[in-house]
Amino acid sequence: MPSTPLMQLALPHVAVLHAYTPGLQPTEPGWVKLNTNECPYPPSPRVAEALREEIGADGASLRLYPNPKSSPLRAAVAKLHGLTEENVCIGNGSDDILNLLVRIFCDTVRSSRPLGPAPTNRAVDANFITGQETRATAGFMFPSYSLYPVLVGIQDGRSAVIEFDRTMRLPLDRIAASAAQVFFLTSPNAPTGVAFPNADLESILKSFRGVLVVDEAYVLFAQENAVPLLARYPNLVIVRTLSKAYALAGIRVGYALAQPELIGLLDCVRDSYNVNRLSQSAALAALGDADYYDAMLAKVKATRDTSLAQFAEKRGWFTYPSQANFIFTEPKNTRGESGPAVARAAYDFLCTRKVLVRHFPSHALTASFLRITVGTDGEMSALNESLDAWLKTPLA
Amino acid sequence: MPSTPLMQLALPHVAVLHAYTPGLQPTEPGWVKLNTNECPYPPSPRVAEALREEIGADGASLRLYPNPKSSPLRAAVAKLHGLTEENVCIGNGSDDILNLLVRIFCDTVRSSRPLGPAPTNRAVDANFITGQETRATAGFMFPSYSLYPVLVGIQDGRSAVIEFDRTMRLPLDRIAASAAQVFFLTSPNAPTGVAFPNADLESILKSFRGVLVVDEAYVLFAQENAVPLLARYPNLVIVRTLSKAYALAGIRVGYALAQPELIGLLDCVRDSYNVNRLSQSAALAALGDADYYDAMLAKVKATRDTSLAQFAEKRGWFTYPSQANFIFTEPKNTRGESGPAVARAAYDFLCTRKVLVRHFPSHALTASFLRITVGTDGEMSALNESLDAWLKTPLA
Repeated sequence: MPSTPLMQLALPHVAVLHAYTPGLQPTEPGWVKLNTNECPYPPSPRVAEALREEIGADGASLRLYPNPKSSPLRAAVAKLHGLTEENVCIGNGSDDILNLLVRIFCDTVRSSRPLGPAPTNRAVDANFITGQETRATAGFMFPSYSLYPVLVGIQDGRSAVIEFDRTMRLPLDRIAASAAQVFFLTSPNAPTGVAFPNADLESILKSFRGVLVVDEAYVLFAQENAVPLLARYPNLVIVRTLSKAYALAGIRVGYALAQPELIGLLDCVRDSYNVNRLSQSAALAALGDADYYDAMLAKVKATRDTSLAQFAEKRGWFTYPSQANFIFTEPKNTRGESGPAVARAAYDFLCTRKVLVRHFPSHALTASFLRITVGTDGEMSALNESLDAWLKTPLA
Repeated sequence: MPSTPLMQLALPHVAVLHAYTPGLQPTEPGWVKLNTNECPYPPSPRVAEALREEIGADGASLRLYPNPKSSPLRAAVAKLHGLTEENVCIGNGSDDILNLLVRIFCDTVRSSRPLGPAPTNRAVDANFITGQETRATAGFMFPSYSLYPVLVGIQDGRSAVIEFDRTMRLPLDRIAASAAQVFFLTSPNAPTGVAFPNADLESILKSFRGVLVVDEAYVLFAQENAVPLLARYPNLVIVRTLSKAYALAGIRVGYALAQPELIGLLDCVRDSYNVNRLSQSAALAALGDADYYDAMLAKVKATRDTSLAQFAEKRGWFTYPSQANFIFTEPKNTRGESGPAVARAAYDFLCTRKVLVRHFPSHALTASFLRITVGTDGEMSALNESLDAWLKTPLA
């Protein structure tokens, strides 16, 4: 090979990318795993049944490609929401859908730059701007799902980041005035659990000139969802996942709900066989068992509300009102202090007890908090006992 | 929503995209399906066993995210090829890997265009050029896998297309001299089945200044593969799939083999959970059953060689020597004529007999041919009986 090192062949923005950091997935047993917002209960028993049926005696059906459009699944999702198949696109997880939306709407920085050699050692942060900016191509709140900037970075897009203040109230006017082509809004938000009412979303949709993506990954744990707004706002896309409320993070199925024109764009840019046979079968079975999931969601929400009261009232820790399956709480040590060091100490102590939660140390709005997935009642007791033990250590 | 129709918000090149057209996947039973190069035999019985084990009694493991790097599968692939885990990236099908390679290496037309309003009604074909061209970003042969131009189109890249002549010999110098950042070469090629020896690949690699992607989707049906070249050529990427030779098109697993630096780039741009739990289990089980697949491959190759002789010698149809699991043959009617109309007539007649093959009518190099997947001996007999029946019809 002549003198063309690989990194010079890669697009300049790719060579400086940082990959998204998923939560730890410990491989050894024994952990109380409250770090990646998985459901503590198994999926509907119909899922295992449907999979066994698809596999049959010898897995013979697996030699054939899956249904390229996941058509039976689209039909089931449409029925669930009172929509038509033309309103639905299925993804290999909702991350697939989010990535496709970036590819449809988010222009590259390269294309809006004067021609000439790319600057060397360009920092990734150079693509980040705050608030309104005519060249911005994708917007999102901070803190919210940390995948958005990663996807925009892969596209070499320019992000307009709007920061929450500690109230975590949505700055409606700033979002509506954003020049972004597409704005990603997580509701209920992660990692806070705070949900945004449809009245707020509608106020944005009425004046925002771009596409608003409402990422409803956690919405089945909330009181309201944005589906009723779809018919009135063609620039609204709703993204859902089966990873959380359907207890199916392992199968990677998510979907988009939108007007047919937008679904058509997703179909043009997605992989033609993006969802495999087994995942299609599993998802279809899960969507058909509303009774099972109604009971499961009620149970998770009850555990969440009990735990939330325990943090907020019994321990007196500042805790956001959660409409998701996790709790964002600000630990206090025995001296009543909170802050990044206190949160880190609690996190580290929990790790020594094999209780895994999530700590986001890199920003003032998150660094003094822990994000704790709602587990079973037993797991939450184990967590609380470990926190009690932490508070008895000399350094807490 | 103010006056911003959706199509004006989408990037201009996306609004004019045409989606990749996969082969028909008939949902009703009774078809002899020889159109999408699936394997006619079921996968190793270990696949069904491994899946049943993963699912367990109640599918409980499915509530958890998959291993984000597919690490056990990377280790198994590495062992299979005498490489290390750092040489392997797993994809949601090899299409996932191909798409990621485009995102890493293929610059957009937008970024190499003077600033200004995008031309309206820009034809997709405007991004196609032939042969060497300094602005080209991705290259490939025609005919070859028709997904490449689709992926380059989604990226708004510029394709350098090099046409075969009817000999289907590789124009080594033209490829080596191509200005493309990345060149996709299918070997054995589709839809012809013609394989390119390592000596040819090496001659390209020695002087080509970009990244050469050898797409070995069908290589397990061939006599040689490019893995031995990996150590010597850092600009070589090999792409494999489990869809064909492992009889697992339904699970969507493929992989890339390359130097660690390039694998690192793939990991930066791929979805962090791109391969689900069930597909990881199934693939791992398949890779562990070499004996089963050795026997199966021998059977498919024997059927292929018998069928090929039947087309080429018994019927006297021009047929390329195939090292894949399909045959590209040029039907002749009773008057000894061949051509697009004859191929179309044969295709249509086969459809009426519920025998499904593939016809690519849009180009002179392919339009007078049919691509026929190698099925079971029984399916090949059914095909041949239907072709005999076609030759007895008055219009053939």
